[in-house]
Amino acid sequence: MDPHLPQVLVIRPPPVFAVHEQSISNKFQILKAYDSPLPTHDFLQANAQSVKAVICSGNSPITADVLRDLPALQLVVSTTTGVNHIDMAECRRRGIRVTNVGDVFSDDVADVAVGLLIDVMRRISGGDKFVRGGRWPVTEQYPLGSKLGGKRIGIVGLGHIGSKVAIRLDAMGCIVSYTSRQQKHSTPFTFYPNILQLASHSDALILCCALTNDTRHMINNKVMAALGKKGVIINVARGAVIDEAELIKCLVKGEIGGAGLDVYENEPNVPKELFRLDNVVVLPHSSACTNECFQEATQVVVGNLEAFFTNKSLITPVRNDF
Amino acid sequence: MDPHLPQVLVIRPPPVFAVHEQSISNKFQILKAYDSPLPTHDFLQANAQSVKAVICSGNSPITADVLRDLPALQLVVSTTTGVNHIDMAECRRRGIRVTNVGDVFSDDVADVAVGLLIDVMRRISGGDKFVRGGRWPVTEQYPLGSKLGGKRIGIVGLGHIGSKVAIRLDAMGCIVSYTSRQQKHSTPFTFYPNILQLASHSDALILCCALTNDTRHMINNKVMAALGKKGVIINVARGAVIDEAELIKCLVKGEIGGAGLDVYENEPNVPKELFRLDNVVVLPHSSACTNECFQEATQVVVGNLEAFFTNKSLITPVRNDF
Repeated sequence: MDPHLPQVLVIRPPPVFAVHEQSISNKFQILKAYDSPLPTHDFLQANAQSVKAVICSGNSPITADVLRDLPALQLVVSTTTGVNHIDMAECRRRGIRVTNVGDVFSDDVADVAVGLLIDVMRRISGGDKFVRGGRWPVTEQYPLGSKLGGKRIGIVGLGHIGSKVAIRLDAMGCIVSYTSRQQKHSTPFTFYPNILQLASHSDALILCCALTNDTRHMINNKVMAALGKKGVIINVARGAVIDEAELIKCLVKGEIGGAGLDVYENEPNVPKELFRLDNVVVLPHSSACTNECFQEATQVVVGNLEAFFTNKSLITPVRNDF
Repeated sequence: MDPHLPQVLVIRPPPVFAVHEQSISNKFQILKAYDSPLPTHDFLQANAQSVKAVICSGNSPITADVLRDLPALQLVVSTTTGVNHIDMAECRRRGIRVTNVGDVFSDDVADVAVGLLIDVMRRISGGDKFVRGGRWPVTEQYPLGSKLGGKRIGIVGLGHIGSKVAIRLDAMGCIVSYTSRQQKHSTPFTFYPNILQLASHSDALILCCALTNDTRHMINNKVMAALGKKGVIINVARGAVIDEAELIKCLVKGEIGGAGLDVYENEPNVPKELFRLDNVVVLPHSSACTNECFQEATQVVVGNLEAFFTNKSLITPVRNDF
């Protein structure tokens, strides 16, 4: 570790950092709270006067407590797109800047959203279990799936990811509509002004929105009732966009048709009730996890840190003025 | 069973027939070889003089032996698109006409082809097993997948299904090329004149061709070597398009990267060696199995039979003149 390199704090290694630590360590002196025998709080206080930048992700939230321990902090670099794990209000108050990785994950997340929708509606991982369990020669006909073509798919949040999901589904002959903070006049897709209207006009919902105070538990039992007994929910956003306890109730009672989930309210813990359901596909928050994306994200992380330490413009600053 | 309805033979119920038997039985007198105490051969001989039409699929092949038992046969109605289970040469010689279900399954099969590609490259059913097995909280980082965007995907057979796969992959940012009996000048995709050239320019192959003498075991160890160690094979065509024994060797030795299979050489038996591999997804020949498709296919089957028995033009005759 070269003490002349600029210091960057890592409280717990984000996945992108864990995979590409070497290329980041080549350029920065990494202060590893997770490698220290000190409790995190003590480690932060011991480095309080010097730490200007921190790398984080959902598994190492930057809370008000963490920020209080770091009075010299000027930059929070997230290895993710969403920044719901950062106390943005406190950062704003203190003038701490925040970067994410911009749009680098959008295509990969959109691919997995579509993969989950195909999987749930066409029973792909269920079919794989059926064959591997030796059931095909015994039970001749595997249960029929549901056709995607012609189905009404509602996208929640037509940002970078949602737009890419829409293009993919359109190519598959789905009828795409969406809800979003604002109507996007540049798209041909039908806009519904709220989630209830979208759900009642959809056969499936795909959640692609940021987690904010407005979207927390947006998918509640009313929305699921509007979606209906055959309705499918795909979540590649954040777990807490759904009221998870209600989702489980609805799935267990058959009040919705199925779900494909990449994210959960209390990761890495996934409610065990889901494991008994064969109309559910559960992923370990891996929709952005490709070799190519992690490399690209690392470049953005390094680029933002280099820009900061050389007083240049940040590459992917997150707006924090509202 | 109304004896005044036209007679139609079913040797073994195709999946489409099994699900929609009632709507077919309403219009035809079904002779069920599979419900008879007689051995099939004896049942056929007992009805030899009267049977003019038979319904079949891959699980009830119309072989030369079957045709020999049915001297009055004039029409073979397949509930599938592919007709590799019918002795077409013998039908041609005897002037027996053959119908399939035309294009009704293409969109659904294309969806599953894309679903399998996403699944293998992004490790979806593997991720589902990882989470359900309780491994996420223990092993923090699930292995990274491979990005689809920018990958070179080679489509084998750019017919109805292949064209629909191409449109879907194009929307995902893949670079699509193909091989086919003839170059299709109406598409923007790159044509390679043979499978070896296609494989050596592809990161994944998607098999969408008919099974014929020309395509049987077309995917041999030379093709897999050309595809390479990271290459992925998706098969929604027929099992015998791949040399299955060679495929298993290549997968076990790591000479190709993974496979997504809906079809096998000896269905419903799937080689058990595949079950030990986590870079493989195995489906029970279900790529065409949706409620919507089965309904549509039933209408085509009934339509062809009605046309035949009223001397009208068949709806979806299969050309049998080459």
